[in-house]
Amino acid sequence: MTSTDGRQKWLTVAEELAAALRVDAAERDRLGAEPSAEVGALRRSGLLGVGDWATQQAVTRVVGAADANVGHLLGYHYLQVWRSGLFDNPNSRTGADLSGADLFWAGVSNPLDAALELRPVDGGYEVTGRKTFATGASVADRLVVSATDTETGDKITFTLDAKADGITYAGDWDNIGQRLTASGGVVFDHVHVPADQVLGAHDDSSPRLSLAALGFQLVLAQLYVAMAEGALAEAAQYTRTTTRPWFLSGVDTATADPYILGTYGELVADAQAAGLLADHASDRLDQASRRGADLTRTERAETAAAISSAKVVATKVANQTTSRVFELCGARATAAGYAFDRFWRNARTLTLHDPVSYKAREVGAYHLTGEHAPFTGYS
Amino acid sequence: MTSTDGRQKWLTVAEELAAALRVDAAERDRLGAEPSAEVGALRRSGLLGVGDWATQQAVTRVVGAADANVGHLLGYHYLQVWRSGLFDNPNSRTGADLSGADLFWAGVSNPLDAALELRPVDGGYEVTGRKTFATGASVADRLVVSATDTETGDKITFTLDAKADGITYAGDWDNIGQRLTASGGVVFDHVHVPADQVLGAHDDSSPRLSLAALGFQLVLAQLYVAMAEGALAEAAQYTRTTTRPWFLSGVDTATADPYILGTYGELVADAQAAGLLADHASDRLDQASRRGADLTRTERAETAAAISSAKVVATKVANQTTSRVFELCGARATAAGYAFDRFWRNARTLTLHDPVSYKAREVGAYHLTGEHAPFTGYS
Amino acid sequence: MTSTDGRQKWLTVAEELAAALRVDAAERDRLGAEPSAEVGALRRSGLLGVGDWATQQAVTRVVGAADANVGHLLGYHYLQVWRSGLFDNPNSRTGADLSGADLFWAGVSNPLDAALELRPVDGGYEVTGRKTFATGASVADRLVVSATDTETGDKITFTLDAKADGITYAGDWDNIGQRLTASGGVVFDHVHVPADQVLGAHDDSSPRLSLAALGFQLVLAQLYVAMAEGALAEAAQYTRTTTRPWFLSGVDTATADPYILGTYGELVADAQAAGLLADHASDRLDQASRRGADLTRTERAETAAAISSAKVVATKVANQTTSRVFELCGARATAAGYAFDRFWRNARTLTLHDPVSYKAREVGAYHLTGEHAPFTGYS
Amino acid sequence: MTSTDGRQKWLTVAEELAAALRVDAAERDRLGAEPSAEVGALRRSGLLGVGDWATQQAVTRVVGAADANVGHLLGYHYLQVWRSGLFDNPNSRTGADLSGADLFWAGVSNPLDAALELRPVDGGYEVTGRKTFATGASVADRLVVSATDTETGDKITFTLDAKADGITYAGDWDNIGQRLTASGGVVFDHVHVPADQVLGAHDDSSPRLSLAALGFQLVLAQLYVAMAEGALAEAAQYTRTTTRPWFLSGVDTATADPYILGTYGELVADAQAAGLLADHASDRLDQASRRGADLTRTERAETAAAISSAKVVATKVANQTTSRVFELCGARATAAGYAFDRFWRNARTLTLHDPVSYKAREVGAYHLTGEHAPFTGYS
Repeated sequence: MTSTDGRQKWLTVAEELAAALRVDAAERDRLGAEPSAEVGALRRSGLLGVGDWATQQAVTRVVGAADANVGHLLGYHYLQVWRSGLFDNPNSRTGADLSGADLFWAGVSNPLDAALELRPVDGGYEVTGRKTFATGASVADRLVVSATDTETGDKITFTLDAKADGITYAGDWDNIGQRLTASGGVVFDHVHVPADQVLGAHDDSSPRLSLAALGFQLVLAQLYVAMAEGALAEAAQYTRTTTRPWFLSGVDTATADPYILGTYGELVADAQAAGLLADHASDRLDQASRRGADLTRTERAETAAAISSAKVVATKVANQTTSRVFELCGARATAAGYAFDRFWRNARTLTLHDPVSYKAREVGAYHLTGEHAPFTGYS
Repeated sequence: MTSTDGRQKWLTVAEELAAALRVDAAERDRLGAEPSAEVGALRRSGLLGVGDWATQQAVTRVVGAADANVGHLLGYHYLQVWRSGLFDNPNSRTGADLSGADLFWAGVSNPLDAALELRPVDGGYEVTGRKTFATGASVADRLVVSATDTETGDKITFTLDAKADGITYAGDWDNIGQRLTASGGVVFDHVHVPADQVLGAHDDSSPRLSLAALGFQLVLAQLYVAMAEGALAEAAQYTRTTTRPWFLSGVDTATADPYILGTYGELVADAQAAGLLADHASDRLDQASRRGADLTRTERAETAAAISSAKVVATKVANQTTSRVFELCGARATAAGYAFDRFWRNARTLTLHDPVSYKAREVGAYHLTGEHAPFTGYS
Repeated sequence: MTSTDGRQKWLTVAEELAAALRVDAAERDRLGAEPSAEVGALRRSGLLGVGDWATQQAVTRVVGAADANVGHLLGYHYLQVWRSGLFDNPNSRTGADLSGADLFWAGVSNPLDAALELRPVDGGYEVTGRKTFATGASVADRLVVSATDTETGDKITFTLDAKADGITYAGDWDNIGQRLTASGGVVFDHVHVPADQVLGAHDDSSPRLSLAALGFQLVLAQLYVAMAEGALAEAAQYTRTTTRPWFLSGVDTATADPYILGTYGELVADAQAAGLLADHASDRLDQASRRGADLTRTERAETAAAISSAKVVATKVANQTTSRVFELCGARATAAGYAFDRFWRNARTLTLHDPVSYKAREVGAYHLTGEHAPFTGYS
Repeated sequence: MTSTDGRQKWLTVAEELAAALRVDAAERDRLGAEPSAEVGALRRSGLLGVGDWATQQAVTRVVGAADANVGHLLGYHYLQVWRSGLFDNPNSRTGADLSGADLFWAGVSNPLDAALELRPVDGGYEVTGRKTFATGASVADRLVVSATDTETGDKITFTLDAKADGITYAGDWDNIGQRLTASGGVVFDHVHVPADQVLGAHDDSSPRLSLAALGFQLVLAQLYVAMAEGALAEAAQYTRTTTRPWFLSGVDTATADPYILGTYGELVADAQAAGLLADHASDRLDQASRRGADLTRTERAETAAAISSAKVVATKVANQTTSRVFELCGARATAAGYAFDRFWRNARTLTLHDPVSYKAREVGAYHLTGEHAPFTGYS
């Protein structure tokens, strides 16, 4: 099977999952439960095992358009497996060993929290502390966790069985959007970390390791695009089937209204441009990732700028599109049962992950003076 | 007491009510109950009895900024009392007779529904049928209703006791925004309409009667502005007290972040401009209303254009502001408990009342060729 | 004659001047000569002698809509006369003494240049040095000049006869917009300043004297609004008379095209809102100015914020409107003979007077924390 | 030499030409002469002979960023050669025969003019009449012309030597932008058309022939993107070297100003997205073109939608960017000598080629109902 055939096969699988997710997306958003069933569906679909980067990204967009929660869980899953390989550690069992079509990965590493504490013990470490915003962790099979060695001060990344003794999940994610992403806190109480699950230490000077943060930025951009695409698809379905022509429009159907058509055109065109920019950034990151240890700071900076560009455009498009689609559907589309507001609530929530104004600043500085974005948890 | 003193007194009352409403606005939005307690608070405040047009508008903005649901109920209440006087019918008891500081009015007249049927009977009429989207009716003391005389085909407007025999309320308003406005359906089953409660027949050629529709358009614009003002006030409170400075910002507090300051500035300036345009439109409608039977079609057209201008600008400002304020607060402001999304959900819902693209078209046509907006239920 | 009658009289005069200016505005823009004829027309019109603040502002808008160059000269003339009175100096002949319907005033005080040097001599001072961007100076009768006393370091403001010995005009204003504003440099070579023309010393702590900078900011905002209004008026004239309907539009005239109408509506509504905000800011400055020495820092800050709000909105509206009107006229409206690009070139040039991002910042800071704008040459 | 090597070689040539064009672009814009020297430079560069579609597009963008006039001439040249091959006429000498690295092609076929008249004569036709807006014709070596057979009513396309007897050029292009594109009128006075230069008759039902109009739409989109790219490059050069930091900014250089950086970031990101969308549309048209006679209406519709999307986004980006870059340079950048306004004047002029609102409508209709864009001279 060629690579293109492989991609097409997985896109078909993703479309089928997306269709199933759309059926009760509004109801599931309303309930806001832990996404156990959703992760179960991901496991059964086989999508968790997709290994090709470009296919991962394409699949994330398709699933994310139907349900941005599930797209988020899936996109982050791929990232965790990928980033575990960035350490290139022959002594650890990494994504290549530990991932599989039935294992769902999540991460515990909010850079703005105080660090978890890691104490060296026989055969590895013991980790203790609390982290917030660990998307998907409570429904995961395997975690990628970052913590600080209390003796050396090194920031160490390792994997854990998500059900390991001493791990508890706060279940405290209750936000206006991305309600099914299980993005609550995690508590570690003297949890044992086997030595062969240690991926490595963070090295502030390594362009390669610094790609991890860029991966998250990219997937966020992809999800923003997916939200816009999803809103436009669902709105079009509604306009075609349900929207009444305005009595002053002089046309017989809403699908012939000049303003509805013109606004769809503007929003669709913007979403396409944003999607291509995200795809372009994805290609750049894939290339940078393949460069391995040879990746230079200059190449890394160019990759970072491409991703930040995508995030700037996708943020604007996602928030704009998910709000304006209501104008294309009309007043009755605000009925709570449709829950069309979930697209905006999801976009508004996830686009606040980190302030987009600083991404625009990065892109501007790179254009103006070639300034490299710093290596941080967000850039 | 001078008029200015009177206005100031009522603004103070409105500010007090607004402060009380803010305390549990998020919780009340979540529950989405019938706004009985809210209407009770309006009755107790005395605001229902404010007679001066400009004060009514100012009070609506203050209350609407704190809680757009209650602002909506109050603004529409004033309109019902006002429009009952447009018929200028010496034989009926109108707003002047029937209103009072403790009586809450609402209307039943969605122009896009099929008309209620009105059958002449001894001593008046009997009304039967069903209407949708009757904001506030189920919690009202008095209704203004429009129906069609089945014999003459005349469209007749009359008042009713909201608790009259034969009236039932569907309680079927369940939408993403303006959740506490009781905007559900009303069913009339052979309800008696006493002759002295008949305000008059609709006259398609009367500029004066046509002002009723403009009144609703104006109050919608005022409420959109209020939503933006409310969101900006609440966001500022949050930014000042809770938002953390971004670690790349180089400043110690969020209130010194250049992008946060710049964006507040743009949103605040736009909201001020929108507010002045709504006030200007309000003045024009007040003047037109005072012209009584002398009101010309040309004057009416100018008034309509001013109001549509206000609606076009206020629609944009309300949707933009209520979404963008999140950027000024940061990711944690999406916690469900704050329910900051209610500002956007309210704006998004109410700005769809009728398609704003046709308001822009009206303004454009008036500027370009002096074309008069038609007399309709929406213009 | 009542004040309203007076204002109406001057508005009529302004409209007549505006009509005359429109006739050859394109040709005069092309030639880009010194505006001697234009200032002559201002002198003959009597408008230079208008004393009422609100009338001055209204007249500036009317003239500025027809020709932003002449509006600029006129608006700045009023400011110079007004600011000469802020010093409240009983020993000097100020605007009240020196102005008249046939005297055109201009200023020489670009805050970003190095200061002119002022040397005390018998009977006054002697001034030497060079300033840039002195709008209207080379065609003025009387100048208001700021310079620094080389002995005391005081910043002194005084008036001069614009034709006084030792003053030469560089005639070096050659910019893409506002081409007829004579905004070039001025050279002072040992020019005598009689003592009774000294208005006073700048006092950094005086709210009243600080109003001068706000006056310029306000008039800029008024001119931006005027540019938008002028572009919309001229475009409408063209659309009505010359624009062909697009062959796919399904309508017979461009004035019936839904997109043309909708876009006019949006631009017109925005311009109206910006105009009201500028008028509001103008009222605030008039009130602040009338407070005299009693003006508090808090009142001054509120005034500054109102003016900056107006500038933020008017900047956006002016640039947007003067560019987008072309879409309402069509491709043939780009013929050089029409010079419709002058509206945008004027707006683009004048809106760069000082960076609007720092005005937005001011408005944001005032909203968020009540921070007062600093007293500077630009705020 | 591989295709990639070939492309890189031509891009280098294009960059060299672009660098030369930048040197005196402002001066040449001011003079507004016939672009004879510019076309000479194109001939000498060898770029006229580039045959690969993707390379043609890339080269057009590079040259167009430096000088949108020359980019326009070059992009249209490629289109004329390309479209002469769409007729697939074995009996005529088409682009493949007649083009060469030293021959510059242009077209005479404004769809909105009345048609030229074509009279059958011995050995071919004779053409008479007048057309407007024939970009580049007066400086061309070879023309592609459309005219109507007066006997059959067929619309016939043919090539002519641009210097053939009976052809005169009106030289009447005098517009605010694209001043060096020689887009004036052409008069044909009994000009002989040899039979072997007849490309074929227009066939309204042929998807393949209908691609010609799409080619022009695509190249317009590419040029709009190029204008934005050119403005951003030139502005960055100015900001780096000349812009002063604002005294309230708290930073030492304009390149550290947070608002300047943020705005660059937004504009750059938008331009990148627009560029990728244009490239995507270009790929689609190339694929459609290669399908030859097999091209289906559905494929054609998808191609048209992709191109219209690109045009919608690129139009917005070009107008926005070329105006806003001034904010990144400051007031002194409005000096006439820089002629930075030429970017906006070029963008504003060329984006009016046909009304973009109808392109948005097309995109919207395709998204909403799958409606195919009609086959016209503009879609």
